[in-house]
Amino acid sequence: MTVLIQNAHILTMDHRREIVGGALLVREGKIAFVGEERDLPAQTKADRVIDARGGVVMPGFINAHTHLAMTLLRGYGSDLNLQDWLFQKIFPAEDRLLPGDCGAAGDLGIAEMLLGGTTAFLDMYMFMEETAEAVKRSGIRAVLSRGLTAGDAFEEKLAEAVRLHTDWHDTCDGRIRVMLCVHAEYTNNEQTVRRIAEEAKKLGVGIHVHVSETDSETKGCLERHGVTPAQWLDSLGVFDGPAVAAHCVWLTPQDEELFARKGVSVVHNPGSNMKLASGVCPVQELLNRGVNVALGTDGASSNNTLNMQKEVYLAALLGKLSALDPTAVDAYTALEMATVRGAKALGIDDVCGVLREGMDADLILFDTCAPWWSPVSDAAAQVVYAASQEDIRLTMVRGEILMEDRVVKTVNVAAAKAAVEHAVEHLYE
Amino acid sequence: MTVLIQNAHILTMDHRREIVGGALLVREGKIAFVGEERDLPAQTKADRVIDARGGVVMPGFINAHTHLAMTLLRGYGSDLNLQDWLFQKIFPAEDRLLPGDCGAAGDLGIAEMLLGGTTAFLDMYMFMEETAEAVKRSGIRAVLSRGLTAGDAFEEKLAEAVRLHTDWHDTCDGRIRVMLCVHAEYTNNEQTVRRIAEEAKKLGVGIHVHVSETDSETKGCLERHGVTPAQWLDSLGVFDGPAVAAHCVWLTPQDEELFARKGVSVVHNPGSNMKLASGVCPVQELLNRGVNVALGTDGASSNNTLNMQKEVYLAALLGKLSALDPTAVDAYTALEMATVRGAKALGIDDVCGVLREGMDADLILFDTCAPWWSPVSDAAAQVVYAASQEDIRLTMVRGEILMEDRVVKTVNVAAAKAAVEHAVEHLYE
Repeated sequence: MTVLIQNAHILTMDHRREIVGGALLVREGKIAFVGEERDLPAQTKADRVIDARGGVVMPGFINAHTHLAMTLLRGYGSDLNLQDWLFQKIFPAEDRLLPGDCGAAGDLGIAEMLLGGTTAFLDMYMFMEETAEAVKRSGIRAVLSRGLTAGDAFEEKLAEAVRLHTDWHDTCDGRIRVMLCVHAEYTNNEQTVRRIAEEAKKLGVGIHVHVSETDSETKGCLERHGVTPAQWLDSLGVFDGPAVAAHCVWLTPQDEELFARKGVSVVHNPGSNMKLASGVCPVQELLNRGVNVALGTDGASSNNTLNMQKEVYLAALLGKLSALDPTAVDAYTALEMATVRGAKALGIDDVCGVLREGMDADLILFDTCAPWWSPVSDAAAQVVYAASQEDIRLTMVRGEILMEDRVVKTVNVAAAKAAVEHAVEHLYE
Repeated sequence: MTVLIQNAHILTMDHRREIVGGALLVREGKIAFVGEERDLPAQTKADRVIDARGGVVMPGFINAHTHLAMTLLRGYGSDLNLQDWLFQKIFPAEDRLLPGDCGAAGDLGIAEMLLGGTTAFLDMYMFMEETAEAVKRSGIRAVLSRGLTAGDAFEEKLAEAVRLHTDWHDTCDGRIRVMLCVHAEYTNNEQTVRRIAEEAKKLGVGIHVHVSETDSETKGCLERHGVTPAQWLDSLGVFDGPAVAAHCVWLTPQDEELFARKGVSVVHNPGSNMKLASGVCPVQELLNRGVNVALGTDGASSNNTLNMQKEVYLAALLGKLSALDPTAVDAYTALEMATVRGAKALGIDDVCGVLREGMDADLILFDTCAPWWSPVSDAAAQVVYAASQEDIRLTMVRGEILMEDRVVKTVNVAAAKAAVEHAVEHLYE
């Protein structure tokens, strides 16, 4: 199937190339043409022609840090402090998880992401095979990592993580990839981290890890090990291959320098960090040092959504506020964090993250009929500061239209909601 | 016309009364019943019955500080510092305003507000008769204030502000009220502020004023007058009657104490303050002192929308982050700032701001079918952290349905967009 999108304002996110009066042709899942409409080869034919009506076409959002199945715990215990929230609400509920719960949450969370223009995500959680099945049936793209913590069952869980790689890595026409995961410094020890780093090296995959989310985590690590979480993880080999460090709120300048030197990608989670009052990731400083910074929602338990548009908006606003500089984290930079930089973090920038000929067609279309789209001086600023989720008219992954006119094609939303609400009966107290 | 809304989860915002399985009856523009469905009088009949399908009904949002006509300048010069933005972009464009421009912007901005669940707003700008006409034709509620600054034409502008009161105060069945306005300390002098305060006292109306939006404004005032803007304005009588102080980012503890003592309402504008990197209004401290704090969008020029849902979300998140306390500015408090506290600030709490029998029916209905409404542990938290603008299915003011199923009934959006885009041709450089 070929799809031609015409009459579009295209933010390619490819070296800030912006095309007014643009056209984009999708053939066999890939971008066959992107450019000005007048440059489209004369005999171009398509099975389907979509008039963008002047709307904005851009790469889909890449949610670079989430816990999809925590959609089960959406908003469970809002407005509590982190310790009460984790120990009184989240951990007891997780102990009551049953097989099937995470699959249902996967369907629901993916539907939400497709409605929000997300075309790929990086996940960390348990029951990861259920999440993989949900990704497979939905058509979305994902990089999956099984959360690993020290404990009696560590080797069993690590074997599970390796099996996830064997069974799922580079499956579904490359839509699914697998990474390893160190949950965090405070839930692991020297031995478990070394084992994970070894296995990652053997498999040739990256490592996904929580780093310095809170002040107390960072201070605790200094007490336990005499160094910061970033330095401790580095000493055990976590950053010797590709790595994705989520949160990174309480980094030292030495940590920032380390990440720049080792090419570690950082994932900023402004919604979750603000809601839990964890603090602010030093985004502009990291960018200034040349660190790749991506964006994520974290889990719906602490967010309470999987809406990347909100994160883009918060990243731009919080970047300015925390620097007391209105030119910090400008609109284009925030969009890069949510697209091309996300692709780089996930190691999928060979196939997506920008709109360029030969790349997979992972893209979204914003309709611009609503009042808040007038007047428009700058399309990127408009997407970041003014667009509403309802403006997202189409979400496409590898050339397949997965959401159109606010209807998800590949998930039965009502059934997923019913299944999640059923699960909640045994999860919540 | 009578309207009965059934099967609703009602957040009355009246002393946090929350009704599950609720019904609300509207008769002659007023709330005739609000309570559990089973308590509805048996013979109740209505011209129209709306099944809320379990959705959330609450008072409409009150945008307590905006400049409606600045919708003309939406996003004009994003990501600039305040001085460049004002002097290179905003002021030159304002000098090119023509009659009719502000009316068109009024129509467009009101359409946006109705789609966003806003039922009332407090405005400050020029060409205020055009805004009043737009309010009249749209059915929305507003309190209008003509911006006043020192200069040759001061007495003329003050006479215009008084005439606005004569012509429009308490018109359209009470939907429109009028206040006076001191634009700010830095744009006025002792004499002009005294004149405005005198006239306000004579008319028996409140005063709307910008206070300590930026650090430089506050420091400048200290240099000019030896006291803070709040103290200087107070010394000239601005806070002797009802007053609404917008922004209030750089208040001293003495200023906070003054506002508590004099009953001054503060309007927090988190979106605009973050985007312009102005700083953070000390919301939780003000609330702790007993100050009434409302919420506003500021103009679309610096926001870039008039979307109160975003402000509610930012108020809750920013309140927690700036206090480094996840229990600060909880979801209910953020919603109170956007409803009952807004009504108090605008002096319209005699008719709206809560859902109670005898009050005007100014309300909104959230549909809860979308994936992000499942599971729900707390309806108020859900509205604040997870709801999307598209969930707002109905906006009603004084019992009239002004927006339903994402269609504005009283504004021709396409025509308003065309008129604004036409105006932009002579406004922008």
